[in-house]
Amino acid sequence: MPTFSLSFEVRDYELDFQGIVNNSVYLNYLEHTRHKFMQELGIDIKGLHDRGLDLVVTRMEMDYKLSLRSRDQFMVTVEIHPEGNLRIVFDQKIIRLPDEKLMLAAKTTGVCLRNGRPIRPGDVPELHKFGFNL
Amino acid sequence: MPTFSLSFEVRDYELDFQGIVNNSVYLNYLEHTRHKFMQELGIDIKGLHDRGLDLVVTRMEMDYKLSLRSRDQFMVTVEIHPEGNLRIVFDQKIIRLPDEKLMLAAKTTGVCLRNGRPIRPGDVPELHKFGFNL
Amino acid sequence: MPTFSLSFEVRDYELDFQGIVNNSVYLNYLEHTRHKFMQELGIDIKGLHDRGLDLVVTRMEMDYKLSLRSRDQFMVTVEIHPEGNLRIVFDQKIIRLPDEKLMLAAKTTGVCLRNGRPIRPGDVPELHKFGFNL
Amino acid sequence: MPTFSLSFEVRDYELDFQGIVNNSVYLNYLEHTRHKFMQELGIDIKGLHDRGLDLVVTRMEMDYKLSLRSRDQFMVTVEIHPEGNLRIVFDQKIIRLPDEKLMLAAKTTGVCLRNGRPIRPGDVPELHKFGFNL
Repeated sequence: MPTFSLSFEVRDYELDFQGIVNNSVYLNYLEHTRHKFMQELGIDIKGLHDRGLDLVVTRMEMDYKLSLRSRDQFMVTVEIHPEGNLRIVFDQKIIRLPDEKLMLAAKTTGVCLRNGRPIRPGDVPELHKFGFNL
Repeated sequence: MPTFSLSFEVRDYELDFQGIVNNSVYLNYLEHTRHKFMQELGIDIKGLHDRGLDLVVTRMEMDYKLSLRSRDQFMVTVEIHPEGNLRIVFDQKIIRLPDEKLMLAAKTTGVCLRNGRPIRPGDVPELHKFGFNL
Repeated sequence: MPTFSLSFEVRDYELDFQGIVNNSVYLNYLEHTRHKFMQELGIDIKGLHDRGLDLVVTRMEMDYKLSLRSRDQFMVTVEIHPEGNLRIVFDQKIIRLPDEKLMLAAKTTGVCLRNGRPIRPGDVPELHKFGFNL
Repeated sequence: MPTFSLSFEVRDYELDFQGIVNNSVYLNYLEHTRHKFMQELGIDIKGLHDRGLDLVVTRMEMDYKLSLRSRDQFMVTVEIHPEGNLRIVFDQKIIRLPDEKLMLAAKTTGVCLRNGRPIRPGDVPELHKFGFNL
């Protein structure tokens, strides 16, 4: 199964009044990493959309372990695997650098819709690049 | 167990390039509703913090059902119940108005820390207002 | 010249690490108020866009007077007037309530583009609702 | 006078419903660049704050030239110069790469406060690093 990682640095506007990265900002980091991963695989979300195909998030689970703070360096990883016939799961970690502490673990579940109806990811040739062919 | 709800309207800057509210923005709605609820109960997060007490989110689960769009009116509800000895669970729903469609269901788990160590919520007099006394 | 105002309350996720509303968030308040004003006038930005017409911000000036803080109530006002043949100016104020202190004064300049080229706002019937007919 | 630049890439969550970077997001880019510049000069904003010294933005002017879009690479520059006895001006540009098109020009004016009252920047030894000694 394919894996990918991307490096980040906390930006001060992402901090909340407690001086830690706000809970919602982690979703931005996770999404940006998923999009860069798909870009790297050559999957063009807009191109899919123009053919009536959409990847949609249906569920997110996040375990917050430790808080990111001003100037922290970190990387976000993503691994993809299928779940059942229809679901695609993105397992993601946020790991602080250089001490490699796990800050957050997340599981994002998505489905592929054609004109609003779920289809098997294996029916979309581009998604074979995710390394599975249901 | 206490419940609370708050009304919102989608603001255009919350939309992403697909014209729907970005996944991360829902966490802002959920957090604001939790904070207003605690404010209503007279729980002063900053006052607790100054006494070394912090309410910290340890886990979030979100089921995305339907997408909010420009100008949508909606309400966010919150109910609180204990889980085990240490955990406080906030069950939240985002419900579009006026058709009352469920857009998102979320479960946020938190713990109360005194100087960084988990304590029983029932040991904090203010948290008795959550309606449980562990 | 038409005027409009909208009420807001600071949400905690809008605060930065200094416990005050981050500078960039004021632009969200200003934009949301402009959009609601246009909605009130019956101007449909998406409808204009579909006919190749776009209202585009070309310049913003903001004077930060005082900082909004947690739980602050405030209103945002907007007045519109023309500037020269092509420019539309939105004069906006952010006023804390109930003490009516001026927190921010902003001037946003926009132009109307048809297929990417500036046209006179008076050439767009919908924009006559701004109260001027250049 | 000192200058500094920082590289960025547009992240999809920064786009608005028109598929372009939202006006308010540019302020995040500008602020992050100013903070990294000060970090590079060894100016510790929190350290200053703990001594009762705050750098505060009093005015921003932004000319929006062209819109950043998905995947755009760009750099943000900053130059600092004094204005009068009390004001510090940050001149900033956002330049798309690799074509070096100017996307935005911004002028941010700040003052240094000691316990809430404006003082001359030259009275703060750390700010001599800005290259001027009023």
